[in-house]
Amino acid sequence: MATSSDTEICGFIGLGLMGLGMANNLLNKRKHHLIIWNRDTSKSVDLAAEFPGRVTVASTPKEVVATAQVTFSMLSTLEASTAVFEGPEGMLAGVGPTTSIVDCATLTPERMAEMAALVEGKGGIFLEAPVSGSKAPAEQGTLIFMCAGNKVLYERVSEDLDAMGKAKYFLGTVGAASRMKIVVNMTMGGMLACFAEGLGLAKAADLPLGDLLAILDGGACSCPMFQLKGPKMLQRKYDTAFPLKHAQKDMRFAVELGDKLAQPLPVAAAANEVYKRARRHGHDDHDFSAVAEACMPPQVVKGEASNDKAVNGKSERP
Amino acid sequence: MATSSDTEICGFIGLGLMGLGMANNLLNKRKHHLIIWNRDTSKSVDLAAEFPGRVTVASTPKEVVATAQVTFSMLSTLEASTAVFEGPEGMLAGVGPTTSIVDCATLTPERMAEMAALVEGKGGIFLEAPVSGSKAPAEQGTLIFMCAGNKVLYERVSEDLDAMGKAKYFLGTVGAASRMKIVVNMTMGGMLACFAEGLGLAKAADLPLGDLLAILDGGACSCPMFQLKGPKMLQRKYDTAFPLKHAQKDMRFAVELGDKLAQPLPVAAAANEVYKRARRHGHDDHDFSAVAEACMPPQVVKGEASNDKAVNGKSERP
Amino acid sequence: MATSSDTEICGFIGLGLMGLGMANNLLNKRKHHLIIWNRDTSKSVDLAAEFPGRVTVASTPKEVVATAQVTFSMLSTLEASTAVFEGPEGMLAGVGPTTSIVDCATLTPERMAEMAALVEGKGGIFLEAPVSGSKAPAEQGTLIFMCAGNKVLYERVSEDLDAMGKAKYFLGTVGAASRMKIVVNMTMGGMLACFAEGLGLAKAADLPLGDLLAILDGGACSCPMFQLKGPKMLQRKYDTAFPLKHAQKDMRFAVELGDKLAQPLPVAAAANEVYKRARRHGHDDHDFSAVAEACMPPQVVKGEASNDKAVNGKSERP
Amino acid sequence: MATSSDTEICGFIGLGLMGLGMANNLLNKRKHHLIIWNRDTSKSVDLAAEFPGRVTVASTPKEVVATAQVTFSMLSTLEASTAVFEGPEGMLAGVGPTTSIVDCATLTPERMAEMAALVEGKGGIFLEAPVSGSKAPAEQGTLIFMCAGNKVLYERVSEDLDAMGKAKYFLGTVGAASRMKIVVNMTMGGMLACFAEGLGLAKAADLPLGDLLAILDGGACSCPMFQLKGPKMLQRKYDTAFPLKHAQKDMRFAVELGDKLAQPLPVAAAANEVYKRARRHGHDDHDFSAVAEACMPPQVVKGEASNDKAVNGKSERP
Repeated sequence: MATSSDTEICGFIGLGLMGLGMANNLLNKRKHHLIIWNRDTSKSVDLAAEFPGRVTVASTPKEVVATAQVTFSMLSTLEASTAVFEGPEGMLAGVGPTTSIVDCATLTPERMAEMAALVEGKGGIFLEAPVSGSKAPAEQGTLIFMCAGNKVLYERVSEDLDAMGKAKYFLGTVGAASRMKIVVNMTMGGMLACFAEGLGLAKAADLPLGDLLAILDGGACSCPMFQLKGPKMLQRKYDTAFPLKHAQKDMRFAVELGDKLAQPLPVAAAANEVYKRARRHGHDDHDFSAVAEACMPPQVVKGEASNDKAVNGKSERP
Repeated sequence: MATSSDTEICGFIGLGLMGLGMANNLLNKRKHHLIIWNRDTSKSVDLAAEFPGRVTVASTPKEVVATAQVTFSMLSTLEASTAVFEGPEGMLAGVGPTTSIVDCATLTPERMAEMAALVEGKGGIFLEAPVSGSKAPAEQGTLIFMCAGNKVLYERVSEDLDAMGKAKYFLGTVGAASRMKIVVNMTMGGMLACFAEGLGLAKAADLPLGDLLAILDGGACSCPMFQLKGPKMLQRKYDTAFPLKHAQKDMRFAVELGDKLAQPLPVAAAANEVYKRARRHGHDDHDFSAVAEACMPPQVVKGEASNDKAVNGKSERP
Repeated sequence: MATSSDTEICGFIGLGLMGLGMANNLLNKRKHHLIIWNRDTSKSVDLAAEFPGRVTVASTPKEVVATAQVTFSMLSTLEASTAVFEGPEGMLAGVGPTTSIVDCATLTPERMAEMAALVEGKGGIFLEAPVSGSKAPAEQGTLIFMCAGNKVLYERVSEDLDAMGKAKYFLGTVGAASRMKIVVNMTMGGMLACFAEGLGLAKAADLPLGDLLAILDGGACSCPMFQLKGPKMLQRKYDTAFPLKHAQKDMRFAVELGDKLAQPLPVAAAANEVYKRARRHGHDDHDFSAVAEACMPPQVVKGEASNDKAVNGKSERP
Repeated sequence: MATSSDTEICGFIGLGLMGLGMANNLLNKRKHHLIIWNRDTSKSVDLAAEFPGRVTVASTPKEVVATAQVTFSMLSTLEASTAVFEGPEGMLAGVGPTTSIVDCATLTPERMAEMAALVEGKGGIFLEAPVSGSKAPAEQGTLIFMCAGNKVLYERVSEDLDAMGKAKYFLGTVGAASRMKIVVNMTMGGMLACFAEGLGLAKAADLPLGDLLAILDGGACSCPMFQLKGPKMLQRKYDTAFPLKHAQKDMRFAVELGDKLAQPLPVAAAANEVYKRARRHGHDDHDFSAVAEACMPPQVVKGEASNDKAVNGKSERP
């Protein structure tokens, strides 16, 4: 099996919350020369300055694709992805018979299939590779890649994926990876909504919320997400690892996927509406743990944060 | 602080899935003599045979309470608890000025307050102490005790609780512990319903379910519950650690607690209906992970289990 | 079949929103002498003054039941009903071998069965007879009676029921009528929540709400409830025909009945949570159409009512 | 105001459940010559035969638009509409500076705006005009038109709309009418799901379903939809006036519109999942009242229809 040579030129498009960490790992763990593009050029320039002689800043997405042997793209929304993919200076315009594209965004399965067809229509090959994990795993190289599409390309970039992630899965034809990602994020989003409702009910019942976190963490529900976000949620601090508007978008994708498959998802559908309520309260760009704001009794949400007391429950351990 | 003497006579009522493990831990880790009662006498006799000279089998709950310095009770439902508590030979009939009762069942806050008032009306003292954890933690002595009521009694039994559990919390006046337990089980029940819907959507989308489990386990949602139950759910094996009918009862209690507090719980309410659907499909006495049966596409539920293939997804780790 | 004689003494307990209209109809359409009791005595005295020589004000519920040949009771909640039914001066204390009680309240099936058993235990007979219809139908004598229990009593009071209502149904053993009433109110409460969500979505989409009412009224959804309440909801006027807290109670009863029957009710459960949200916003004692307050976009709910414009849509009819 | 001349040539595209009735009304009540197109040509030929000399069968949608002064189109889905609108022989290909198009389909607001822009880009004018009402109102000329877009065109076709409907509303810029239609159908779909859950709960509680229909019809919830569909639902006869898959599509559109507006719709979202469940049970092409199949206890759904007894409840009216 041919794997990517360490001296190849690798493209990277999209240096946001996720992409920057991923590009850094490629540069640190692999020997690639990177050609990069980002909407906000200052991020590209900064990265080039950090890795002198190893990074070229392209002026268009087209240039990246036309130059690189393999191009990774990591864009945060369907709209951003479409804007960068299409148009005279977009990625597609740079596609030729030797092009390989690995798209790591969370899009719909339909859009992935459409992009794959367009790339293949010009002779290129395409791998869909959305990831599980947010900002910190992207920086730490512990993402999980869900891949589908061209199996040869999957094998060729396997060392690159290993540089950016801790696991990877090949799931079949294009669309399967996006569907898997939707399932994963639906489960995660639903879980966090359940947790937020638990906090809300405990607060309404005047129970010590800090004890609730400890009790949950001592049992079968203990998970990194609750450990990380729980204490911040009690303080109502929602610094953004995964924006709530994107979490809600993924819940919506899940409900729509259920639509296409005639698969009822009553819990996910209810959670989706709770995320919408949080969006309505102005939390679009906060972390998705701000879903708690849609679940707290009104005195908490409207009044001043007085959860310090609550955090400070009494617990004793043997 | 006075703690319980190691030579005291301790009562234990209810030797079911949970109670038997708890009583064993009391016998193994403490030096108490136990006086016990169980509806099915054979279990009591077996336990007495295992610990010769240390266990007395009482003929009525009343006898246990009248004899023991502290009585623990662990009954699985409101109906079972009421049947054992009331009546001429029930626990309450044995209560006097020196009686101490620690009730570990998951009941409503209202019922706990009522029982406490009845015990206190006859001069006794009462601690409500529902637990987080099912059969295995009961056996391993790793339960978590949520306590409320008489603080002196809480302190007096602290070494007993430590023998049966790994953590304990004192949460205030009677009712608070049951409310906390309801919140904990609501969160857990909601999470498992989200997980089950994720499995159902993945199945409907023809994705490899084994890979889904691995991807979830590699990320922020990784938790003992999914690790333990996930693989069994793929095999549709639901050996009972926590009966589904009790999980649904706790979801109902949560929705009712929300009623009393005018606290909306749309996700928990949706999950409650999914558990009801699983009950309707005949899973009352199966493990609550049988909620998956209410979330799977019909070909799976009705047809023969063909998940072996699904479990067997392709994954590679670096 | 023996029917009630026009000269008999008839008891009536509970002269609230519903009971007063019902008692008036009994007095106006029938020739009964009434012996009445109400918690607030002034209402009893007023009614006695309106019908000189035909109404006796009793000093206790017990006195009513002990004196009357048939006693109707119409109390608004389980708590009110229990308070009036039990105790040394309660209804039950007055029950003897010739007593007939017709209970028109909306209670749980379990409570109705319990009351019937208590009455029958003292030799009396019992008919459960909850009604469909709120204040106006009570006044106009156009209620619908759902009856269950003693069939002979049903036949005996048939002319009385006809004086107060426009239709009556005999549904079987005690409990059946309360269950039917729960189903009816669940359907009604769910419908109004759907309607409120429609208004909320139209408002969020900046559509003329008055036109929406007209369009709905022109089609298959046209119903007295939307006609009556729709225009008031646009003005955010919620004068109470049926208190929201009672509507939510009935949704809760429905969800609980579903629990007992393992019958999933996902839409009713979601609607129940919306009514809870309205309660949380302080609408317990407003009409249940105040559920709209839980469905409107925040600028509407928080800001000043600016729906006048919206009501004033443009429509033309041929 | 210029109104359409009675002798003008009017186009009509789409002769399905709805379109055929509408075209008949145009022919019967107006003096237009019609040029028509339908995917299944036999329907066009039949209509032409019924109105000799007044109907021309076009060979393509393009021909209709290029010939007619005003073209009405009534297609059942986004897919059907797109197929007929685009392509070398599609409607758009026939648009010129004198073209007027009135689109009566239920599409998304976004698609309507897109079509309007395409028509206007070629110099034509566009009115979006989705309808409330299904097969029977289409035949009887009692539809309700929700219109938006070109106001001059709205006025010009006002007599045509009056021939096909009993009311019409002009709601603003293109998209507003589709949004209103979505709100109307969401309300209707939610109501029917509530009704179906009521039937399901009554059935599970062993109550006479025929009495339930009568009780609902005697009260504030009485509406043509329940009157028409209720008795058929008890018989499990779902002859299609409005296909369930389209009803579910409209629920989905509503949930998506809520997404765009950050407007939570928990009841509609729950109802959407119930319609999905009905689709999963194979009712895509049945009437949307087949939602009852997703709400009935399993013995009813799986076994043979034994509702005759249920219909036959005992009722007496004064």
